Amino acid sequence: MNKGNIIHRTKFGLSPGTLVFTGTQKMSCVDITLICYSEEDVSISNPGSIAEAIEEIRLYPGNCWINIDGLHDVETIEQIASHLGAHKLTIEDILSVNQRPKLEEHAEYIHLAVKMLALEDKDQAISYEQVSFLLKGKVLVTFQEKTGDAFDYVRKRITENKGLIRKKGTDYLLYALLDSIVDYYFVVLESIGERLTDIETELLDNPDKNSLNKIHLIRKEMLQVRRLIYPLREVMGSLEKIQEPVLSEGLSIYIRDLYDHTLRVMETIESFRDTVSGLLDLYMNSVSNRMNEIMKVLTIIATIFIPLTFIAGIYGMNFDHMPELHWHYAYYVALAFMVLIFFGMMFYFRKKKWL
Amino acid sequence: MNKGNIIHRTKFGLSPGTLVFTGTQKMSCVDITLICYSEEDVSISNPGSIAEAIEEIRLYPGNCWINIDGLHDVETIEQIASHLGAHKLTIEDILSVNQRPKLEEHAEYIHLAVKMLALEDKDQAISYEQVSFLLKGKVLVTFQEKTGDAFDYVRKRITENKGLIRKKGTDYLLYALLDSIVDYYFVVLESIGERLTDIETELLDNPDKNSLNKIHLIRKEMLQVRRLIYPLREVMGSLEKIQEPVLSEGLSIYIRDLYDHTLRVMETIESFRDTVSGLLDLYMNSVSNRMNEIMKVLTIIATIFIPLTFIAGIYGMNFDHMPELHWHYAYYVALAFMVLIFFGMMFYFRKKKWL
Amino acid sequence: MNKGNIIHRTKFGLSPGTLVFTGTQKMSCVDITLICYSEEDVSISNPGSIAEAIEEIRLYPGNCWINIDGLHDVETIEQIASHLGAHKLTIEDILSVNQRPKLEEHAEYIHLAVKMLALEDKDQAISYEQVSFLLKGKVLVTFQEKTGDAFDYVRKRITENKGLIRKKGTDYLLYALLDSIVDYYFVVLESIGERLTDIETELLDNPDKNSLNKIHLIRKEMLQVRRLIYPLREVMGSLEKIQEPVLSEGLSIYIRDLYDHTLRVMETIESFRDTVSGLLDLYMNSVSNRMNEIMKVLTIIATIFIPLTFIAGIYGMNFDHMPELHWHYAYYVALAFMVLIFFGMMFYFRKKKWL
Amino acid sequence: MNKGNIIHRTKFGLSPGTLVFTGTQKMSCVDITLICYSEEDVSISNPGSIAEAIEEIRLYPGNCWINIDGLHDVETIEQIASHLGAHKLTIEDILSVNQRPKLEEHAEYIHLAVKMLALEDKDQAISYEQVSFLLKGKVLVTFQEKTGDAFDYVRKRITENKGLIRKKGTDYLLYALLDSIVDYYFVVLESIGERLTDIETELLDNPDKNSLNKIHLIRKEMLQVRRLIYPLREVMGSLEKIQEPVLSEGLSIYIRDLYDHTLRVMETIESFRDTVSGLLDLYMNSVSNRMNEIMKVLTIIATIFIPLTFIAGIYGMNFDHMPELHWHYAYYVALAFMVLIFFGMMFYFRKKKWL
Amino acid sequence: MNKGNIIHRTKFGLSPGTLVFTGTQKMSCVDITLICYSEEDVSISNPGSIAEAIEEIRLYPGNCWINIDGLHDVETIEQIASHLGAHKLTIEDILSVNQRPKLEEHAEYIHLAVKMLALEDKDQAISYEQVSFLLKGKVLVTFQEKTGDAFDYVRKRITENKGLIRKKGTDYLLYALLDSIVDYYFVVLESIGERLTDIETELLDNPDKNSLNKIHLIRKEMLQVRRLIYPLREVMGSLEKIQEPVLSEGLSIYIRDLYDHTLRVMETIESFRDTVSGLLDLYMNSVSNRMNEIMKVLTIIATIFIPLTFIAGIYGMNFDHMPELHWHYAYYVALAFMVLIFFGMMFYFRKKKWL
Repeated sequence: MNKGNIIHRTKFGLSPGTLVFTGTQKMSCVDITLICYSEEDVSISNPGSIAEAIEEIRLYPGNCWINIDGLHDVETIEQIASHLGAHKLTIEDILSVNQRPKLEEHAEYIHLAVKMLALEDKDQAISYEQVSFLLKGKVLVTFQEKTGDAFDYVRKRITENKGLIRKKGTDYLLYALLDSIVDYYFVVLESIGERLTDIETELLDNPDKNSLNKIHLIRKEMLQVRRLIYPLREVMGSLEKIQEPVLSEGLSIYIRDLYDHTLRVMETIESFRDTVSGLLDLYMNSVSNRMNEIMKVLTIIATIFIPLTFIAGIYGMNFDHMPELHWHYAYYVALAFMVLIFFGMMFYFRKKKWL
Repeated sequence: MNKGNIIHRTKFGLSPGTLVFTGTQKMSCVDITLICYSEEDVSISNPGSIAEAIEEIRLYPGNCWINIDGLHDVETIEQIASHLGAHKLTIEDILSVNQRPKLEEHAEYIHLAVKMLALEDKDQAISYEQVSFLLKGKVLVTFQEKTGDAFDYVRKRITENKGLIRKKGTDYLLYALLDSIVDYYFVVLESIGERLTDIETELLDNPDKNSLNKIHLIRKEMLQVRRLIYPLREVMGSLEKIQEPVLSEGLSIYIRDLYDHTLRVMETIESFRDTVSGLLDLYMNSVSNRMNEIMKVLTIIATIFIPLTFIAGIYGMNFDHMPELHWHYAYYVALAFMVLIFFGMMFYFRKKKWL
Repeated sequence: MNKGNIIHRTKFGLSPGTLVFTGTQKMSCVDITLICYSEEDVSISNPGSIAEAIEEIRLYPGNCWINIDGLHDVETIEQIASHLGAHKLTIEDILSVNQRPKLEEHAEYIHLAVKMLALEDKDQAISYEQVSFLLKGKVLVTFQEKTGDAFDYVRKRITENKGLIRKKGTDYLLYALLDSIVDYYFVVLESIGERLTDIETELLDNPDKNSLNKIHLIRKEMLQVRRLIYPLREVMGSLEKIQEPVLSEGLSIYIRDLYDHTLRVMETIESFRDTVSGLLDLYMNSVSNRMNEIMKVLTIIATIFIPLTFIAGIYGMNFDHMPELHWHYAYYVALAFMVLIFFGMMFYFRKKKWL
Repeated sequence: MNKGNIIHRTKFGLSPGTLVFTGTQKMSCVDITLICYSEEDVSISNPGSIAEAIEEIRLYPGNCWINIDGLHDVETIEQIASHLGAHKLTIEDILSVNQRPKLEEHAEYIHLAVKMLALEDKDQAISYEQVSFLLKGKVLVTFQEKTGDAFDYVRKRITENKGLIRKKGTDYLLYALLDSIVDYYFVVLESIGERLTDIETELLDNPDKNSLNKIHLIRKEMLQVRRLIYPLREVMGSLEKIQEPVLSEGLSIYIRDLYDHTLRVMETIESFRDTVSGLLDLYMNSVSNRMNEIMKVLTIIATIFIPLTFIAGIYGMNFDHMPELHWHYAYYVALAFMVLIFFGMMFYFRKKKWL
Repeated sequence: MNKGNIIHRTKFGLSPGTLVFTGTQKMSCVDITLICYSEEDVSISNPGSIAEAIEEIRLYPGNCWINIDGLHDVETIEQIASHLGAHKLTIEDILSVNQRPKLEEHAEYIHLAVKMLALEDKDQAISYEQVSFLLKGKVLVTFQEKTGDAFDYVRKRITENKGLIRKKGTDYLLYALLDSIVDYYFVVLESIGERLTDIETELLDNPDKNSLNKIHLIRKEMLQVRRLIYPLREVMGSLEKIQEPVLSEGLSIYIRDLYDHTLRVMETIESFRDTVSGLLDLYMNSVSNRMNEIMKVLTIIATIFIPLTFIAGIYGMNFDHMPELHWHYAYYVALAFMVLIFFGMMFYFRKKKWL
């Protein structure tokens, strides 16, 4: 289970600007991938140290994208960020993985933090990680906690020179990466939507005690996804307003498109919330109906047999003088009377639509 | 059933700007209708290819409306859109049928995407499709997934030269088409309203187990309609603000009217939501009342006969020394006592208003 | 019952600007009342045709108010509206009685549509009709579906020269008419308030099965009233901003007053909504309490007599060897034991506060 | 009980500007108190007529505060208001005690209407009255329906020359009076808070049938208080923006303070609303728990004794050939078996945590 | 328990600006701590009186931070505030500990009041106190009710010269202190989050009657925390807009960071509210399920044994002529028939999934 509700107290009491990685240290070493590309050529390398990477960037005339997987090596992060002239708080934000999605425009660079969602293979549980972007001129640096694969498609497009990606600058690359993150949101939403449909089918066909727990779980996950994605709208809105020279002019139409997608994500989540509340009503109804059915069975049985038992009880009394007892056909008459009551009751229940 | 909740993952991982039709390919071929009209004359043709159509437009001095039914032939769409100088993302948006309703103002053209609702004949289920508009100067192109009929009335008005439509430009035509789409929303809302009234009547007269499922279904449909229509308000608001030369000045009063209709659509949907929550209360009440009635029947029967059975039980005991048993009229006295209890109970229940 | 939920489909497919009356044609003929007044004199007439009325207006130097009851004679409406230079869409709006309340400021005139509420005499049901105003210079035209009486007081004030009404222009007349419409809203709200209080009293004293239906009905009516009145706030806000020469400067203070009243109407409706949700809670509680009481009676009777019947059953067994049966006082002891159990149970229930 | 839901229809049909007191005429005569003060001296008088008061004001060089208790003498109110040059609608607003709190800035004076709350001594019920302020230069007039005491503290401060009140102008006096009104809101809120705490304690300890009625009552009262106070925020916001010469510059910091208090009042009311909904949950839970307990008792008794009675029934049958009946220890074995079942059931219920 | 709902009436009727401490007087004496620091040196002292402290500040060329623990000594507070030229209302606000969080920008100083949360050691109950800040030039004064420890880390950073704190001015110090307060909010939220998780686990595993009370308690606490923190967002927003010379230019990036954290606090609280409403649903479900289970047990037992008892009752009747009674195997056949009914019922219940 992912632990979205846990707010890490690790940092309490530290000086603001103290660089501490607040996530869990999952990898043995930081993984640096450097992709240098221009319209003509492209080179991919895995420099051993950040210093090497910086050196390579300096020499290359085109665009460079450094992807860093793993945030636990504070020194590496600090080195590359400082190279780009990032503010101390920016570096702190990159390392602190519980940031709200945000965009900060600085004099020379922009810093962007968003959440990347992922579906875990086995149980479709939703996990997430923070991705930070630093964009300054021809260099874009991306920081991830784990080795992700949502970016692989972008990498492929660069190497295979598909679309516009090699013809445009690093701001277009930033857009392309954000776009693939937002596109993945739809995959996650689709998975949630399928689970909601499954629960709905279950509720309509064969509700059981665990249905509510499933609804509860999905609601909790949606709540978390919503909290992670909600500030994104504002971020995209601000991104649209950033001007030259940070983002080139032609990019705004792409950002607007991204903004539209983000709105669609929000609206889908909101409509899922309504769906969940509809499912709760369905569930509550199925519980009521089951209760009603149980009560009906009890009432039918009790209402038929209690009067009959009473009649049997009458003729089980031991009074000396009970003339009916001695009449020869009394027993058959009594039985017939009971049968009559039985069918009378049956008829009454059928009229009441209980049967 | 329409599948509004399904977010198509088909596009994930593709380069933005890659042209892929995201709908389901329903038709064998793309259907092009070209209507050229001016105040004096009108001509309707079905050009075999888009190139032909473009040629015709070039030669005609008046207004042209190209309607394209079917979006699966990417090349055709691209050709006509490129002819009008549309941006690559615009073309992508036209092909991707899960867009939010939106309006994009470009330097030379405007692009508008809205949802057209339809009622399916057999079960009044609500289906929808995306309609895109490209307006540039004297040419208006409309893109639909399916062969629609909401536009037939507009076509008729053009051919029969009714109203202002042939006296005004393509911007008025755009308005007329949007107007007929929004007018159709009212037809759909009316159908929802009738179904709500039916459910209400059912709940007041003769509620059954399926009522909630009906409410649930209609709520789900409304949720979807709302999601499709909601962004329209904003679109109409923006449309009102577009100025010459794209939209002629005199058009703004028509757009304002359209905007008012859109608001009325929203308000009707919102009031339907309140109606649905009122129906849920009615339903829950009917469930409670039925439960109460079942319990009342059980209680009345049990409360009357359990004490009587006890009395019969007393005189069914086999003690040697039970003087009452031997008294001659004891049996009749016991029966009379039981009848007394029976009527006493009846009186009590009547006083409690249970009978 | 009024049919607020029905959205008339009559107009679908018609050219915008096609003049069709969308209401139900209730009257045999259109009723025209012309009141011409100035500070010195006043004349009331019922011109046979609109042409006559126009002629009279032309000759009269003071202010004129034309009231038209009945909208089914499209030609009459068109004639007078055209005389005032009204746009085609304005005329369409006057005829279409399902408009949202709205204010349109045109170059030479203003058009205002509001809803007038009325209480039906027999059952206090709320009915409504649309009233449109056309104000141009010294002429004010009002259009109503039915012969209304909310304006009688204004008429009286004009003829009896009470207050400022004859000293001021037609814009003040417009205000006076709107004021009497809004004042009537309070009458309607008061009636709703009284019905809510009645329902509350009923729920606290003697709730029955129909209470929910009453709540449901009133809620539905309120929902509709709210939808009709809600846009009024905006209308009044815009009206306040209209300047010379359409509205004279000194009028804004009156409009502001009207705006305040409108706000008060809204707030009253909102507080009624809260009241209704409180009533629902009360009702649900009364249902629960009744259920609890039924269950209590059942439980008390069953819990007392089932064990007693068991004891009686014991001594009704036919074993050969049951020594107690032969003891002389056994029967009395058994009875005493049963009485003991009876009172023990009674004591237990009293302790539990069930009795 | 106060009658906040009743909207007085008395005024319907009257000309706007017709002066009618809409409250209930409680006092025999209007009570005029005139306080003239400057930094050096102070004089308090009760002029017999408003003409006398006006004369006194004219002669006095310092600040004057006229307090008028009782609004039924329309002439008096009109006289003083006209003296200050108040608009006819302003006078109407002063007389109409169902105004929304509002602030009107006129060219020469400001008019302010707020609600003053009071707790009735015997049952802590909340009553309210409207207080209107007219401020023009060195004269402040306050209008109340009843003889109030919230202002006594301000009077005392003036006579005893405490604080800044005699050093500052009538605008500071206005602030001081508003401040004491708002301060009294906290007293009322505190009383509501205490009643909520009492209800909560009752619900946690010993819920009964009347708890919901209490919650309902307090909720109704809060709803009303909220409606009365809500517009105040806006009023205070506008008051802050009024500039010289009406309000002196140094006053804005005091008004801002008042504004903060008003916000705190709102937030407290909002949090009370949440508290009430929490109490409703608690109540519903207590109802459910009681129901559960009743059902548990019934189930335990019935489940134990019904099978035992069945066994007794078996051996009460009169078949000729029932070998067990003739075995000597059969009776004891049967009893032992019954005791076994009894304890088995007990054990089962204890495992289920029903006992 | 903290008493957030109690609004202190102590101040009612006093002149605004009358200085009264509205908290509870907890400490024997006011505790003054003076920290003077510059980049080079730092000195900490505990001056006996405020006059001493003021003297020390005057002599010291660098930054000074005076922390005052305890607000009951009105004179001390007034002395230091007056020294900084604070307005009388500011001083009143510092003493009145029920302020809303607020920021006031005066000509020469800023005044800031926020709430500091704390977790009590024994039961994790949330307590809070008001902290006021007065910032004027090189002097920052902080006022607390109790001796707090959230500031110890900042003190340590000053003395140990960690981070930027000694290199920057008192505005940075203000930021650092606010930052540690906001950081502590996360600690409190984490504690709430853990309690919510505990309740959730309990509800899923083993719900009992007290669960609702726990939910109620936590909800009440959250409500209060929310009310305390909510205005903070606005405060931080205003703080960001304050310019030179009060706050130095480079600070705005830090304030923005703080603002982001505040937003995150809000969002966490909001998501907790949703969590609580999910827990309520879970609880209600567990109550329903328990009820269902009780009803099922009752129904199964009653439905099986009531018909069997009836059969036994038949053959317990004393009719003279009942042929079955005399048939030799009748008893065994009757028993067999009963066993058959028993298993038939069992099968029925298993089919219904009640077993």
